[in-house]
Amino acid sequence: MSPRYDLGPKPHLGYTESLIERVAERRCDPAWLAAQSAHSSARTYVIGGELIVLKNGGDIHDPLFTPNEARALAPLTETVFLGTMNGAARFGTGMTQASADALKARNDLFIIDLRSIAIQGLVAADHLPPLAEAKAMLHWHARHRFCSNCGATTDIVDGGWKRACPDCKGEHFPRTDPVVIMLAVRGDKGLLGRSGRFAASMWSCLAGFVEPGESVEDAVRRETLEEAGVRCGRVSYLFTQPWPFPMSLMIGCHAEALNDDIVMDTNELVGARWFTKAECAAMLMRNHPEGLTCPPPVAIAHHIIRTWVESERDPF
Amino acid sequence: MSPRYDLGPKPHLGYTESLIERVAERRCDPAWLAAQSAHSSARTYVIGGELIVLKNGGDIHDPLFTPNEARALAPLTETVFLGTMNGAARFGTGMTQASADALKARNDLFIIDLRSIAIQGLVAADHLPPLAEAKAMLHWHARHRFCSNCGATTDIVDGGWKRACPDCKGEHFPRTDPVVIMLAVRGDKGLLGRSGRFAASMWSCLAGFVEPGESVEDAVRRETLEEAGVRCGRVSYLFTQPWPFPMSLMIGCHAEALNDDIVMDTNELVGARWFTKAECAAMLMRNHPEGLTCPPPVAIAHHIIRTWVESERDPF
Repeated sequence: MSPRYDLGPKPHLGYTESLIERVAERRCDPAWLAAQSAHSSARTYVIGGELIVLKNGGDIHDPLFTPNEARALAPLTETVFLGTMNGAARFGTGMTQASADALKARNDLFIIDLRSIAIQGLVAADHLPPLAEAKAMLHWHARHRFCSNCGATTDIVDGGWKRACPDCKGEHFPRTDPVVIMLAVRGDKGLLGRSGRFAASMWSCLAGFVEPGESVEDAVRRETLEEAGVRCGRVSYLFTQPWPFPMSLMIGCHAEALNDDIVMDTNELVGARWFTKAECAAMLMRNHPEGLTCPPPVAIAHHIIRTWVESERDPF
Repeated sequence: MSPRYDLGPKPHLGYTESLIERVAERRCDPAWLAAQSAHSSARTYVIGGELIVLKNGGDIHDPLFTPNEARALAPLTETVFLGTMNGAARFGTGMTQASADALKARNDLFIIDLRSIAIQGLVAADHLPPLAEAKAMLHWHARHRFCSNCGATTDIVDGGWKRACPDCKGEHFPRTDPVVIMLAVRGDKGLLGRSGRFAASMWSCLAGFVEPGESVEDAVRRETLEEAGVRCGRVSYLFTQPWPFPMSLMIGCHAEALNDDIVMDTNELVGARWFTKAECAAMLMRNHPEGLTCPPPVAIAHHIIRTWVESERDPF
């Protein structure tokens, strides 16, 4: 039994609760897709590598372009069909990151990365899930224009949900990488780490890719042992989040730590230590005396840590 | 509140609880890997497409070959480092499926697919997780010998855990596809479906790939609606299983069905209907009066259905 903290109303988990209807059964119907695209209600998100192209709206920007508006911006790469929202087709359209960078010169546009959009609330919240869908899909296309089976140039088909090889007839589908992200807990202490990429004050959950031949639970135990030398027993699943950097599925868990001593993998981390619930509560609420922080609510790590901080019972 | 059935001791979930230590930090150390491979305790699993090569042992076969024994079988393709078991290195080695087929002529070998090995218990149970790891990895290599970014031939590096492109310097990592597999339940009824690939008596959980920009919970709801016209509310995670056919991570869930009427997607399914707990109990125990069955314990669907059948409370 460890203390419990009440941090107030639960914030929204970023990129989840999409209002898009994917209408997957129509992806193979080019005539239907063409009609959707030609309809006056059709809109597309425009993405250049890590950058999102927005119509400058002052505080809240508009991420939707008509297909003609998108074509007028710069040379485009792939277009993918995301689905419909309230009956209107939504697409994602790619350009090179250099093209998006060049558009920064235009005052009627606002060009920025998706992380900043999500954290600063620069578009209406409903746009975040389809932006995540579009960014993950377009990143995959940009890296998969050749057939991994024979090296030939592949064709985009099925509204962007498949690439087909004209030579070997291989079919290739968008990729999503499952990643475990976990808080190992031991009584009133939780294990956080720091990557060298983090801001100096930031501590977060450990994380790593699920490997072939591995369950989620085994991946949680392996990554915690590899990165921090902490063995884990029981694993408790919490929730998942699509994470389009570039195309992961984050699988959030608590894990039962079985030892205290930390042996940090210095190739992966620049810090790993135990924090009490009181410290984590302060870090989540951004009032820690030393200015230490945890990730913001847009990230699943915030919710994984917060669920433990707000819980009276041991997760296991 | 629906009735509860006790089906006896819980069976093992196939391909889980690997005894392999992956020793990921040594994958980038070619000298260490070479020494491991040269050690007298090193052994490899030999896989040709869908077929596994075993040493014929009568009832229980031996799936382990020394590296020299493997080389003597047929021309080999990739070799991947799986990890160590009790300190001894374990590898997976590929050959073409045609080569494995040709080995069926030898009486000292036994050549069969992994599903049959798992269902019939043809090797010691400890071998199933590393066989799954090796099969998923080798399938990925066989389909990824070319760079999806530029079309050049790639090199296998890091003990098989990466392919590197000498031209564009792209790096490619083994792929694992997250798949949701779920039982939608409504009181005393659970929703099962039949694919055209199934044996005529077999009914199982609905399933589908998690898509870019989608949480597990949203994927469960989307797939159940798409395949059977059943809307779902709450989703309850159960457990996961690596499933090397060819390289999926099965994410098992219960889902709260919100309507009764089924509208089946005839492109995906040849049957979809509600079964009571009593029927599912009989199907799991293979004593259904009409001979209907559910998948065997090696498959996660068995455990998803069984967990519900054996539960007294609603999962939500």
